[in-house]
Amino acid sequence: MNFKKFHSDEDVKAFAFQYSSLSGHKESATVTEIGDGNINFVYRVADKCGYSVIVKQALPYVRIIGEGWPLSQDRIRIEAQTLQIAGQYCPDLAPEVYHFDRDLCAIVMEDIGAHQNLRHLLIARENLPLLGRHLGCYLASTLFYTSDFFLDPYAKKEQVANFINPDLCKITEDLFFVDPYCDHERNSINELVRTEAEALWEDSVLKLEVAKLKAKFLSQPQALLHGDLHSGSVFASVEGTKIIDPEFAFCGPIGFDVGSIVGNFLLSYAGHSQIAAVDDNGAYQTWLLQVINELWDEFETCFRQLVLEHGTEPSLAVPEYIDWFLKEIFSDSLGFAGTEIIRRTIGLAHVADIEEIHDLEKRAEAERLALSLGRRLIKSRYEIADVASIL
Amino acid sequence: MNFKKFHSDEDVKAFAFQYSSLSGHKESATVTEIGDGNINFVYRVADKCGYSVIVKQALPYVRIIGEGWPLSQDRIRIEAQTLQIAGQYCPDLAPEVYHFDRDLCAIVMEDIGAHQNLRHLLIARENLPLLGRHLGCYLASTLFYTSDFFLDPYAKKEQVANFINPDLCKITEDLFFVDPYCDHERNSINELVRTEAEALWEDSVLKLEVAKLKAKFLSQPQALLHGDLHSGSVFASVEGTKIIDPEFAFCGPIGFDVGSIVGNFLLSYAGHSQIAAVDDNGAYQTWLLQVINELWDEFETCFRQLVLEHGTEPSLAVPEYIDWFLKEIFSDSLGFAGTEIIRRTIGLAHVADIEEIHDLEKRAEAERLALSLGRRLIKSRYEIADVASIL
Repeated sequence: MNFKKFHSDEDVKAFAFQYSSLSGHKESATVTEIGDGNINFVYRVADKCGYSVIVKQALPYVRIIGEGWPLSQDRIRIEAQTLQIAGQYCPDLAPEVYHFDRDLCAIVMEDIGAHQNLRHLLIARENLPLLGRHLGCYLASTLFYTSDFFLDPYAKKEQVANFINPDLCKITEDLFFVDPYCDHERNSINELVRTEAEALWEDSVLKLEVAKLKAKFLSQPQALLHGDLHSGSVFASVEGTKIIDPEFAFCGPIGFDVGSIVGNFLLSYAGHSQIAAVDDNGAYQTWLLQVINELWDEFETCFRQLVLEHGTEPSLAVPEYIDWFLKEIFSDSLGFAGTEIIRRTIGLAHVADIEEIHDLEKRAEAERLALSLGRRLIKSRYEIADVASIL
Repeated sequence: MNFKKFHSDEDVKAFAFQYSSLSGHKESATVTEIGDGNINFVYRVADKCGYSVIVKQALPYVRIIGEGWPLSQDRIRIEAQTLQIAGQYCPDLAPEVYHFDRDLCAIVMEDIGAHQNLRHLLIARENLPLLGRHLGCYLASTLFYTSDFFLDPYAKKEQVANFINPDLCKITEDLFFVDPYCDHERNSINELVRTEAEALWEDSVLKLEVAKLKAKFLSQPQALLHGDLHSGSVFASVEGTKIIDPEFAFCGPIGFDVGSIVGNFLLSYAGHSQIAAVDDNGAYQTWLLQVINELWDEFETCFRQLVLEHGTEPSLAVPEYIDWFLKEIFSDSLGFAGTEIIRRTIGLAHVADIEEIHDLEKRAEAERLALSLGRRLIKSRYEIADVASIL
């Protein structure tokens, strides 16, 4: 294969110094590989003054597998451009891209080191007072400004073509919508919940609803999505929130982004049903639901306001349509949240929120809660009127 | 502008002879300009033996307006490729493309001279026994084989990108979904039905439903559509049917194609309410409804069978999903039929089926029927269970 991998720390430093405000001698700078992701190479480059940037490089295969699992390098262009769009509309909520190099398939970007991986924060039961509002604001801004409400139809169609991302969409198409609904070899199922998993495979109403959601994923380019908005793509602190890693970005159904992150809060809720619930009397679970509530409220309020103030498409700016549209997005979001919860429980990639429960019976209890919640969200998404009625 | 227009009949002949089975001396061949369309140049080239082909050339502007209305020449590539796809899946129902020349923006194709413009046939009250079945079969085949039911997601996404057709979609986006629902200068309104037109502009439930339909048109690439399937795009005889002119093709909602042609039969029905109804006791109107019934029945039966026999996407091959999907397409089709009926009655481009009623009061009666039918189809499309309940 013909590609330009960084061969040494010196290569990484040279690239980082050329395209950022790193100062001082390159020799005194440090390079640390920090990628805890499985797909790409990620480095932190810090100069002598302590200022640092992130360098991310995509190779034409999956990092932890190697050349045996090829993956389009176009994903890093898509990530860079999606970050730039997010930076344009909510600059505080995404890392700034300093430079993207098409030949190297590498980005130099802002180091968000002061923020921590949200999944770890949720497991550690941290309270993050701004989190729900920040996520709602991020979703409303990035999704409105890339939708038919704002873009003229020429720009919108160009955006659809520009963000066609078949390799990464295929991963989602299979892992979210196929594997968990049949006895697939990629699934990873705790033997203690095998009966519950098998019950899903027999549930034809569930499969009907999953088919409807998959059809939306395949053919409803409402807006440019992040495409992989789980707790590990969110970095947070008490003051701030940063959404990273949009390499799965593509034009798809708005509810998929909203639902993915909501599903992750509910997975945390399921995990804490066996952990926090015991020793804080459910306080952290209540906080998780409050975050979902704030997220949705902020999303809805902000999206509606953006349509009214900045909408450019007169036929869609009908107030009754915006109401109807937001209700649809709410139902879609619940459905997609359900698919995220189920695929993280019995599919290939589980979440630490539940996986780190060492007592197998307790873990199974959390998984049972997750599966029943996921199933309900998918099947009853049109009957659930608000966040308070989710549980 | 830099483009290669055919400058003389000799240019047209040379092109046609090079890429078809025309025989004999070029000198003895004849060229006739036959384009009754407004946008392109269309010629019939016939050799001495009477064998003939069609040459169609797209210039970078609208033919009847000139350079003042520029229009992407990419439309002719889109038309050629869409005809080729139709030719692959229902070769009897579309003209064969012998050659497409990207530089000349010109196609040489089969002459379907034995068939006549369906609009003229409907006005002349011709009975075409195979018409409904042929159209249903054309719709089922072209739409199934270009949908997520059949194409793998890589091929589907490539198809979406390949058929992005912004200039021609914009025409539909405006003429179908904007103009008729406000007092737009492009509208052409018979003064006798102005009150009825104004009533539409005040109908907020109607506008809500039109917004939903427009959102689907903008962002629901279910399959590769013909995109302009009115009676003038269908040529028919007692034995055969040919669907031509897919220059508006793009990936969109399946119901748009089905609804466009259904809407045209209903426009004919409305016209005949003032013509045929009087002297044939409604027999021709009954036949028109029978055509719609056969069209839908054939479409539904054939689409279902294609999914079951040739569907490649397991998550969508759930029988309950196919039932649900076809019901949705039926409702969508009624809604889009309603938009076609309304825009052809008070929008820019009217149809001869009604326009040729010389008595202005009778014409207004036909227009009133069309408007009330269109409005009902859009607003009540989910309550109408079958074709028999349309009227």
